[in-house]
Amino acid sequence: MNKDIIKKLKEDASLCEAALAEYFASEDEDIKSLLDSEKYSLFAGGKRIRPFLVIEFCKLFGGDVKAALPFAAAIEMIHTYSLIHDDLPCMDDDDLRRGRPTNHKVFGYSTALLAGDALLTHAFGVAASNEYVSAEVALEAVATLSEAAGEFGMVGGQVIDLEGETRRLSLETLLKLHSLKTGALIKASAVMGALAAGCKKDSPEMAATIEYAAGIGLAFQVIDDILDVTATEETLGKSVGSDGERNKTTFMTYYTVDEARAYAAELTANAVSEIADYEGSETLTDFAAFLLERDY
Amino acid sequence: MNKDIIKKLKEDASLCEAALAEYFASEDEDIKSLLDSEKYSLFAGGKRIRPFLVIEFCKLFGGDVKAALPFAAAIEMIHTYSLIHDDLPCMDDDDLRRGRPTNHKVFGYSTALLAGDALLTHAFGVAASNEYVSAEVALEAVATLSEAAGEFGMVGGQVIDLEGETRRLSLETLLKLHSLKTGALIKASAVMGALAAGCKKDSPEMAATIEYAAGIGLAFQVIDDILDVTATEETLGKSVGSDGERNKTTFMTYYTVDEARAYAAELTANAVSEIADYEGSETLTDFAAFLLERDY
Repeated sequence: MNKDIIKKLKEDASLCEAALAEYFASEDEDIKSLLDSEKYSLFAGGKRIRPFLVIEFCKLFGGDVKAALPFAAAIEMIHTYSLIHDDLPCMDDDDLRRGRPTNHKVFGYSTALLAGDALLTHAFGVAASNEYVSAEVALEAVATLSEAAGEFGMVGGQVIDLEGETRRLSLETLLKLHSLKTGALIKASAVMGALAAGCKKDSPEMAATIEYAAGIGLAFQVIDDILDVTATEETLGKSVGSDGERNKTTFMTYYTVDEARAYAAELTANAVSEIADYEGSETLTDFAAFLLERDY
Repeated sequence: MNKDIIKKLKEDASLCEAALAEYFASEDEDIKSLLDSEKYSLFAGGKRIRPFLVIEFCKLFGGDVKAALPFAAAIEMIHTYSLIHDDLPCMDDDDLRRGRPTNHKVFGYSTALLAGDALLTHAFGVAASNEYVSAEVALEAVATLSEAAGEFGMVGGQVIDLEGETRRLSLETLLKLHSLKTGALIKASAVMGALAAGCKKDSPEMAATIEYAAGIGLAFQVIDDILDVTATEETLGKSVGSDGERNKTTFMTYYTVDEARAYAAELTANAVSEIADYEGSETLTDFAAFLLERDY
């Protein structure tokens, strides 16, 4: 099973990377360092989980992959900006990301900051430029992205995360943290895929999409916390054990490894059941299992 | 004359601030520091030059002010984010802005970074939420904002600006720097006002709008460079003489104060002539004169 899903992930990643390459085709000597810095992190070989969700939810509901690609590219640009800013010395101060030096280690602090700003800014232009959907749908995608990535989404989650380094968070706050910090963008990915396929905001398809994404998003984070204590730097491609060093509240503060694994499995099973009735849902079912079983 | 234009600036600023207050009405104890940090800089009593341009160009071409306000708020949010990030230690490292301590001096480095990110992100949602224009126009505004604020707009200008601290820029590159760093957002403000009034991208109205904005945008920067060497910290509300201390290339590298003033006056006269034939253009004519004559 995992072999197939890895092949599909790679196929969708290639589609997304080809789209991204087009959006970054312009050259300008005067801002070469900025463009190089953006592309360094954007083409660093991520798993492209969010673009995969955009593409596969679009396909699940009968949409054209072409309509999914601008949204897939936009969300990966936002994910990439968040990693660059998250790695900065004033944030997590990480030296290693995906097995390579972090952006500011290569390009310097100010260029990394601006590369993140530029990726975030450009992402909205890319989403708005989607010519394969109506203006109404493109606008809904822009609104979805803004909400998911902003104060009451990803950035809000980062703020709570930083505070989790100075005080112990309740389990309730930890769940909120993750539903914002990683969950919101994962949910937005799936929602934008459904939007690209023409699903309405209040349709049963959209409700199933949101439930699936919320479930795998939280399971993803539980697994991340497990891997931070169990994986090696080599397989993970980033520093491990860093949560514990910083006294961060994680799921490992509340669960043993076995309990956390069981929790992630339950979340995954519930997520999968939400989309089981739709023809062609196997890919997304396999994907949920892949996320649960990953060791990197 | 100037008394009237200052009154109009204040009126439009009040309209924009009321709109901004609505977009920032939500409270959340878990992210209080983030929201406080955003509001600290957003409601710091700026001149609201960009919102003024959105509102007045909308009015000039017969639009409803209501249609201009979401765009005015969005552009002021983007301007505010750029100031927060620009003041950070890794950028200009400024302690004072509009007579008050800069954002990171009050809220800390990481919160200031995230507040900038959140303002930028939220701005696109605000522009997209404009219910007084068609989806096509709102989408065009989102695209305009993204282009003006991104790699080939404001952020690109910031990169060239940083490089101007390490090497002397040619006059040609300096002009490009300013057309990007401050010019792009000023142009976008005027363009979004015209869009809100229903002007098409390729209309003569839009062409005049762009020419006017390009002229006053460049004049604005020339005056800024003059004020950095002639004004006092008290009237300016921020550190003065900082360009020279950093060996930054500015218009003062190439012009005397008198030459620079004459250049700004010529740019302003040309800008004003572009809109002179439209009924009701007096406000924008007075505004151009006000920018030219300002001492803060």
